[in-house]
Amino acid sequence: MLAWLAKAFQRSTLMKKDIMQTNDPTLKSFIPTPPESHFPIQNLPFGVFSTAADPAPRVGVAIGDHILDLAAIAEAGLLNVKPEIFRQASLNAFIALGRPTWRGTRAAISDLLRADNLQLRDNQALRAKALVAQDQATLHLPVEIPGYTDFYSSMEHATNVGSMFRDPANALLPNWLHIPIGYNGRASSVVVSGTPVQRPNGQLKLPDAEAPVFGACRKLDFELETGFIIGQPNALGEPIDIANAEQHIFGMVLLNDWSARDLQQWEYVPLGPFNSKSFATSISPWVVSMDALEPFRAESPVQQPEPLPYLKQSGKNGYDITLEVSLKAGQSAAPQTICRTNFKAMYWTMVQQLAHHTVSGCNTRIGDLMGSGTISGSTPGAYGSLLELTWNGKNPLVLADGSQRTFIQDGDEVAMTGWCQGDGYRVGFGAVSGKVLPARG
Amino acid sequence: MLAWLAKAFQRSTLMKKDIMQTNDPTLKSFIPTPPESHFPIQNLPFGVFSTAADPAPRVGVAIGDHILDLAAIAEAGLLNVKPEIFRQASLNAFIALGRPTWRGTRAAISDLLRADNLQLRDNQALRAKALVAQDQATLHLPVEIPGYTDFYSSMEHATNVGSMFRDPANALLPNWLHIPIGYNGRASSVVVSGTPVQRPNGQLKLPDAEAPVFGACRKLDFELETGFIIGQPNALGEPIDIANAEQHIFGMVLLNDWSARDLQQWEYVPLGPFNSKSFATSISPWVVSMDALEPFRAESPVQQPEPLPYLKQSGKNGYDITLEVSLKAGQSAAPQTICRTNFKAMYWTMVQQLAHHTVSGCNTRIGDLMGSGTISGSTPGAYGSLLELTWNGKNPLVLADGSQRTFIQDGDEVAMTGWCQGDGYRVGFGAVSGKVLPARG
Repeated sequence: MLAWLAKAFQRSTLMKKDIMQTNDPTLKSFIPTPPESHFPIQNLPFGVFSTAADPAPRVGVAIGDHILDLAAIAEAGLLNVKPEIFRQASLNAFIALGRPTWRGTRAAISDLLRADNLQLRDNQALRAKALVAQDQATLHLPVEIPGYTDFYSSMEHATNVGSMFRDPANALLPNWLHIPIGYNGRASSVVVSGTPVQRPNGQLKLPDAEAPVFGACRKLDFELETGFIIGQPNALGEPIDIANAEQHIFGMVLLNDWSARDLQQWEYVPLGPFNSKSFATSISPWVVSMDALEPFRAESPVQQPEPLPYLKQSGKNGYDITLEVSLKAGQSAAPQTICRTNFKAMYWTMVQQLAHHTVSGCNTRIGDLMGSGTISGSTPGAYGSLLELTWNGKNPLVLADGSQRTFIQDGDEVAMTGWCQGDGYRVGFGAVSGKVLPARG
Repeated sequence: MLAWLAKAFQRSTLMKKDIMQTNDPTLKSFIPTPPESHFPIQNLPFGVFSTAADPAPRVGVAIGDHILDLAAIAEAGLLNVKPEIFRQASLNAFIALGRPTWRGTRAAISDLLRADNLQLRDNQALRAKALVAQDQATLHLPVEIPGYTDFYSSMEHATNVGSMFRDPANALLPNWLHIPIGYNGRASSVVVSGTPVQRPNGQLKLPDAEAPVFGACRKLDFELETGFIIGQPNALGEPIDIANAEQHIFGMVLLNDWSARDLQQWEYVPLGPFNSKSFATSISPWVVSMDALEPFRAESPVQQPEPLPYLKQSGKNGYDITLEVSLKAGQSAAPQTICRTNFKAMYWTMVQQLAHHTVSGCNTRIGDLMGSGTISGSTPGAYGSLLELTWNGKNPLVLADGSQRTFIQDGDEVAMTGWCQGDGYRVGFGAVSGKVLPARG
């Protein structure tokens, strides 16, 4: 018993030491990472990539403007994980190895990439094999996603939507302050950043029309979100306690929950959004680990009324992540920032979302994606959708070239980015972007 | 070109001949099947089973009170499909081989099971290997389900719900007659018949209470549904045309969409049901092929207003399937039928559901499950949920032992069954059942 306790203590201490070391702001890699890079040695997010020379998708870690090929590194005997775990088209097999392996692998990679470690730095043959320039690589969907759930956890967003479509005096529905409201999304159409998005067709009911018509969506929108990936599943009938919920999260991504507002308005009563959301959901290719985000914990908003006991959390469960959305209006235009906000303003936290999702006994699976819901701040420039930014089209955005936008036009490219600001470095998410193509004729 | 046409014609003729032969009402198997059996030679539904002697799950076909082990039959060289396709824990690999293979395999099995075919009938060694008594087998979830969608396609059900919770004078919402309304369900918690169902905990708001409380669901309900399984997927951005939609369906199952009415009532606005449905959805273990259902096509209700062109169907797209629900009130009681209805009354058909689901460009995957929505007839005894049967608890059901039910009690077992009545035989679905266990303490 004593031996077991000593071992457990040693392991937990080692783990904390691992995180502290990997997150040390003074750490430097031999791969140059300027202060504005999203991928310094303090981050080391996981993703799946391929190259023209080796078109088989495999697992890698972003470092500066490069990717470290973990299959190659494991084949060289430098990781405690079998190479075949990394010779996969998704992170799922790696994730299945469990939290100590995620942490140990990140620590080993951190060590290998340090400026003062010669092992990889001075091995030209291995560098040639294991380091790939990001602009030479194709990035794939990082996880196989068995289930996609989308929450609705920004009070500002829910208030804006309620004001627009229901009653400004009672914008929040009665359940909103008690439940981290969520719904099941469509997992099949989750795509990786860069995948073009075809404007959906569907049923629309025009104002004052008697009957709906069929046609291309006229109110195509983005929703700025983050998502988290389930790393440790729970069995059917066994809820995840909020105290342990964080242990179940592998990492976070950026997420664009593309939305067809006119389809949504007509279809969503009484069972929720369906075709208006199912045509595409884009996520960023790099999954940032919770360990890398650890230094950027932040207080989340005070919750009043107090949540029910199963949703009561302690400590800091928000994260200070600066988020931006840019719109590139066609081929010639420059991307223009149209939203700046921060994840830490979210009312309901990820651990609350997960505790609520499973309290019924609902099971989760490795790779399940949980979207935050649109992240809106309290000022108009911080609204995370065009619906809110233009107040359902009433106040068009005027772009730099003088053109206006109420909703997204064909040819527009929407890009979202996000990062945590450290002292002289950033732990970033890269970007999630998508260009809108015309509807199917 | 002529050769191609001749071949295509020959193939289509062969296929029709295959179906006509396999569905011949006069066909007899050497495995006895009394007229009320669900599994005569005219059915041959696919499932996944295991036995104590061979605990590896594998694919089988139900025949009478037996299962034909397709792995064993393929190993004996009697099927044009590799044995490893059947040595799987799901039908997905078999389904992926495509419609001609489903059809050809069913025809080959039909031939093999005929009373006048000696090949298996008189081969005692092969019979011992390949025929398993159903009561000696464990039946598993037949498909791996990447996505679960649930529709809401019974006008009687939607009208009942609208009358109870909204406005009896305008019970159907404005979109209902235009859209086969559906929502994304939770695929992770779909379980096979026989799996006990734990009463969920969650948030309830009691009438006149200021705030919600946490506790065990007090209004646990079933929903009588059927489901269909996607056999041929469509790619993202490529809708399934209604004229071809049926080609994409592998087969049908019975489905119980367990529902926590009190959780649902509090959570469902504005994004639809979530925890109230995600704790369990039960399906029957046998997937009845569309070919076996072919003789039981029926007119579906006249649709007024006429649906939009992408939802316009021709021919008979309903199916005459008698459905029953029984409740077994605890250990000692006998099962008691509490609902009798028919699938053919469904307003929206499966091909309309699938055309609508994908018209936005949403992709489907092999094994996707699409629920019909609660199937209610026009008379109280034909309502497919306790919510409707007891009118939200106002008119309790009185059971044979004198006890009453408003909603499901712990220890109750709900079983659903369904069949098509042929001339002297039935093409049936078997049953989907589940016993309710007390909530987690």
